[in-house]
Parts: sequence; C-alpha cells; structure tokens
Amino acid sequence: MSSRITDLKTGPESVQLRLADGSYGEFHHIWLRDNCGCQKCRHPHTQERLFDLLTVPEDIQPAHAEIDGNGALKLIWPGDGHVSVFQPDWLRATCYAGDVSTETTTETISRVLWDASKIADIPEAKYGQVCADNGLFLDWLTALREWGVALLRYVPTDKHETLRFAERIGPARKTNFGTDWDVISMMNPNSNAYTDLPLMSHTDLPNWEIPPGYQLLHCLINEAGGGESILVDGFRVANELRTTAPDSFDLLTQIPLDFRFRDVDNDIHYRSPAIRLGSDGEITEIRFSIALMGALSVPGHLMAAVYRAHRRFAALLRQRRFELRFRLNAGDMMLFDNRRVLHGRTAFDASTGHRHLRGTFMDYDVLDSRIRILRQAMADSAAAGPKS
Amino acid sequence: MSSRITDLKTGPESVQLRLADGSYGEFHHIWLRDNCGCQKCRHPHTQERLFDLLTVPEDIQPAHAEIDGNGALKLIWPGDGHVSVFQPDWLRATCYAGDVSTETTTETISRVLWDASKIADIPEAKYGQVCADNGLFLDWLTALREWGVALLRYVPTDKHETLRFAERIGPARKTNFGTDWDVISMMNPNSNAYTDLPLMSHTDLPNWEIPPGYQLLHCLINEAGGGESILVDGFRVANELRTTAPDSFDLLTQIPLDFRFRDVDNDIHYRSPAIRLGSDGEITEIRFSIALMGALSVPGHLMAAVYRAHRRFAALLRQRRFELRFRLNAGDMMLFDNRRVLHGRTAFDASTGHRHLRGTFMDYDVLDSRIRILRQAMADSAAAGPKS
Repeated sequence: MSSRITDLKTGPESVQLRLADGSYGEFHHIWLRDNCGCQKCRHPHTQERLFDLLTVPEDIQPAHAEIDGNGALKLIWPGDGHVSVFQPDWLRATCYAGDVSTETTTETISRVLWDASKIADIPEAKYGQVCADNGLFLDWLTALREWGVALLRYVPTDKHETLRFAERIGPARKTNFGTDWDVISMMNPNSNAYTDLPLMSHTDLPNWEIPPGYQLLHCLINEAGGGESILVDGFRVANELRTTAPDSFDLLTQIPLDFRFRDVDNDIHYRSPAIRLGSDGEITEIRFSIALMGALSVPGHLMAAVYRAHRRFAALLRQRRFELRFRLNAGDMMLFDNRRVLHGRTAFDASTGHRHLRGTFMDYDVLDSRIRILRQAMADSAAAGPKS
Repeated sequence: MSSRITDLKTGPESVQLRLADGSYGEFHHIWLRDNCGCQKCRHPHTQERLFDLLTVPEDIQPAHAEIDGNGALKLIWPGDGHVSVFQPDWLRATCYAGDVSTETTTETISRVLWDASKIADIPEAKYGQVCADNGLFLDWLTALREWGVALLRYVPTDKHETLRFAERIGPARKTNFGTDWDVISMMNPNSNAYTDLPLMSHTDLPNWEIPPGYQLLHCLINEAGGGESILVDGFRVANELRTTAPDSFDLLTQIPLDFRFRDVDNDIHYRSPAIRLGSDGEITEIRFSIALMGALSVPGHLMAAVYRAHRRFAALLRQRRFELRFRLNAGDMMLFDNRRVLHGRTAFDASTGHRHLRGTFMDYDVLDSRIRILRQAMADSAAAGPKS
C-alpha cells in the first residue's frame, strides 16, 4: 500500500514534503529534474537515462508544484512545460540525507566468520532442490556470500555441468586457465594444482588486478588415496593476527607483494599487499600464495620485519584450529569466496586411483546480481499471492 | 654477457657482494633461502615456489658462502646441507633498495594524453601486418596502452573475427552482454547502444566492480547515414577540470555515484566516484555514464555543489576540442582503454542503411601479459641472432 504526500512546500532550491506516515523529505529541484522517470527522460525498455542535464539551467525551479490526485508529487517545468510525476514510495526510497557513504556496494553483507569448529554448519544444499526452487537457491547463494563457502551435493558428474551450473548464476570468468578447467595430475603441468603434490592453502590468481570473487570446484571422480580438501577463512585468521601481532598485521596491509604467473603464453603480474582494508578499516581482501609470490622488494631495514610478518600469517593460516578439512566425493561441488577463503589440499597418490575436479570462476558482481534478481522474483510472486 | 661477483662478505643478517661492473648489493639470508631457484625449491615446469618458508628458522644463516667458478653466489645451508646458487644477473635484477613502492604494477606506462588536434596521430596498423609480424604487433599494443586508443584497418568483416582477433591478445571478458556482442539497432533493446539514438560519450560498465580495461569495436557494415564515432581522453579532460575548477575535481574524486544496469536477468550495481586517483594523486580511472547513473545520494548541503561539478565535467567532456570524431568503415576496428577513454556516437538513421558493429572486452592484465610475452619473444629472437 502506497503512502501519500500530505504536505508540500517549494523553496528557492528544493521541494520539502511530508508523507501520510509522517516521514519528511527534501529534494533539490535540479535533482528532481534529473531523475524524471517519464518515457522521454528514461528509455522505456532499457531504463537508461536519456535526459541531458546540460539542456536545463543549473538553478532550474519548477513553474508549478502540486500533490496530484494519487498523492504523488507533480511538477511542471518552465520553458517546454515538461511534466514530472514522482511516486511517494520512490521518493521515500531515494531520499538522501546523512553522511556521504564511501562504501562501494549498496548493500551490507553480514559476514559469518568461522574456524574448524564450524565444519557441520557450512551452508549446504542439494543440486536438485536449488535448481527447482528459487527460494532455496536464493537462501543458499545468500549463505555463500555471508559464509564465503557453501557446498552443493548430488551434482551430476558430467564435466559440462560445472559451467552449466555456474551459468545459472551468471557469466563465468575466463582467465589464462580458460573458462572451466580440469584439476587432475598431468605431465608437464603449468601449475602445481595440476600435480599430485600437496597444495598449501592459498588464494587463486593473486597476480590479477582483481582475483576472481568466487571459485566453483566440482568433484567428478575421487578414487585416489589422500587429497583431502582444506578451506581457511582468511578474514578470521587475519583478525587473529591483528589482535595478536598488530605490527605484523599493519605491515601486511602496507607492503605490496609481487605476484606473478608465467607459462609459454602468459606472463601476468600484479602488486598488492597480502591484506587489503576498506575505508572503514575492515578487512576486504586476502591475497596469499607462496607459489606465486615473487622475490620481496622492500628496503633492507624492513626485510626482517616483513619476513616475520609473513611467517606469522603463514603459520596461523596453517593451524588446524582454523582449517575445515573434508573429502570431496564425486557429485560434490564446493563454492568459496576466493578473495576471502584460502583453499588447499593434502597430497594424493595418483597411482591409487583417479581424482578429477573441474572448476570455474565468477565475479562478485555476478553473484550479487543473481541474488537481487531472485529476491525480486520472490517478492513478485509473494505480491501475486498464493495460487489456489 | 654476465657480470661476475668479485667480492663477498657474510654478515649476521645478510650477504654483501660486489659485481665486476662495480655495482653493490646486500641480500638477507632469509630472503636468499626463500628465493632458492633449484628444482626442489621451485617446480621445474610450473616455475612456482615449492619451498616452505616455515621449515627453516627465521634467523637462518648459511653454513658456507662462496663465489663459485662461474662468478655466481653459492651458499650451503645448515641442517640438510641444501645448496643454493644465485646468478649475478638475477641478483642485480631483483636487488632491493629504496622506498616501498605503492604502485600496483611493476612497469610504468608513459601515457600520451590527447585532444581533437591529435586525430592524425592515433596509432594505427593493418590487420595483416599485425598478425604476421610480432614486432609490429608489440609496437601497436604498446601504443594502444600509452594512447588509450588504437585503430586496426583491413580486418576481415566476418562476425567471428572480433573475438578471434581479441584472443590473439588473450581471453576476452564475458559480461551480462555476453563474450562478444552486436551493436545494431534492435526492437526491445536492453541498452541504449542497441538503438539508433545518439550516445553521449561514456565509459562502459561503470556498474561493475572493475569495468573492462579495453574495448574492441569492429565495424562489419556501415551503410547508414550518421553514426560518427566519438572518442574523448577522459584523463586529459579530468586534468583540465583539475586546473580550471579544482573544487569540482575534488568532489568528483570523493563523492561515490551509484551506477546500475538492470534487465530481466541482471541487476548489477556498483558505487564509485567518477574520477579515481592513485596513491600518488595521478588519475587512474574515469567512470562516466549519464545513462547508468542512479539518483544522487549526498547530504542536502552538498547537492548543489555536486551537481555543479558533474555539469562542469560533462560540459568539458562534450567540448569539440577534446573529441576525436571519425567514421568507422567496414573492416575498421577501434580499440580503447575503457577506464580512461569515453566513447560515443552521433545518431544514425537506421532507415538509410545497415550499421553493424561487433564488440568485446578485455582486462588490463591480459593486454599487459601479451606485451610481456611478445617482448620476450623479440628478445629471444634477437639473442638467437640473424638467420643467414
């Protein structure tokens, strides 16, 4: 049910109005003109703005302002007599006030940090349910975003299913490893992942400007001895470092590390600190890969301290109390936030049986978009009411 | 020709050495142990580090240090008697000193800023030459990175060629528009690009966390009247704003704008200032799209100043003295840095003939990697000497 505008006052710079629910708002004339939602000002299909701000004066004022018969704000602009109508609900939703936000996202993620004790609580769903039920799909994706990890069970063990499932969320991210790729032990590997060696916990592609937000690892076959999967919540561990060794933590947020991957056809570098902070001081990203880290380049007097910080962080990341350890079986898929959660594996013995994972990557934008679209679909179907 | 080590001194924390060319370097013991390049410490195929820093003490010292018969540094480590050999050239190249760099890239790009007067100087090459000659390909890609724009002529007018050519550089970036996409006038468009309307100069996908670094636009057919292409160097124009209206410039670097694209299957938001600066105060990114910018949300007392700043920047971006204007003909491809250079077009008349462009995107990492690989190939072939 919409609220109505009950009071309206026009000042030299802005319109002030009150809604039936008592809420109050002030809207600048130029802001109102710029946000006119009519079909001439916004393309009816694309929803993109067509209105050109430079066609009106900076100090534009409405020639006439009124509350229309539906309780909406109706303005008539001078010159061409253009009419704008603003619905009260939209005005309430876009009402501006308070401090400037420096957040890069319009929604807050309530992160759940975890350690080894939470192994039984990892969000988990069944493939068939997630594919059939938008509500469950939404809940599971939301949990993935909050926990930075989620499992999917009973996924068809078809190698094309990895990408097919990813694209139910949105476009996969292609990198130097391709769009989707096999994790198997091979001859002449270009990455240690493609051996049967143990992999210490790490984040993938720290050598890219923006490492992929999410990784999907889909187990097709696991008949080899060993090869347990390991996941570590990097934000949880970095917080521990911050508390127990604040100087080391600070160094790891300040000293850029050179990450590099090269093979015959690629040579991809990026320089970034191991721990990145947002403008509010919260941890926003971890880049950690002993395999890809280049030779440290810091002034000599800092070298010992930087090595100490790096060793402390590495030692914490390897403590069993922080590690989730489990065996992926055929038909399991694990998804994790690659800019927060480190992954690794114990060694496996390729002579005892086959182990075949298939993986792909996805940007944060894509998962966030799917969550919004599913939320809207749920809201629309709730508004349509029960089918009886 | 390699230099040799002529002098060597081992201190409590580091090794100090002098090369035959007179250069001097100091290298910490722990750094040397961590960067051992032998086949046990670094995987011979993947080149990734296998050595585990936590297996040695923090205060490790070599049991023995010497200049070997080739003038290289040879160290024998205590405990397991592990031997490390470091070549003088490698030591010189990785020698650390000076201030901590906060740069995110290991190489400096010498940017050439431009305006309308430079239309005849835009880097340009012929498709056949670039495909046949690595040296020309390297020069042209390097110029694209420095200018933020380059043209390619005589490209086959096959719609699959856009992506095929892009992949000569590296993996394309898939977005909500797909991997490669048509720019044509269509019914029920989900973007104003897919109409015959004029497009004011803008950057693409400002609503993504990281907008694509490069855009490739390949003209397959252009038989319609109108539809001139426009390119503007956003860094050049932002510098002009910085000089002529510093307060407006500052606001545009501080006030986050909400960018949003939505259609039936996507709802992608990101919040970022219009102009981003690096740690040294240099301009590193422009996001500008009237079409995708949402309703401004800033405290009321700032609203007039933010609108004034936005109008000033928009007005400058539209000055003809900054615009490159030209007609893309069938077989032309233009490539530009989408985080620096704005693009637009004049209206065209779809009733006078067909206009069909095909486009794709690519990350900075990918172009940078191809430049490094081509440079290495050129160096290798120079080292191999002329084939006679």
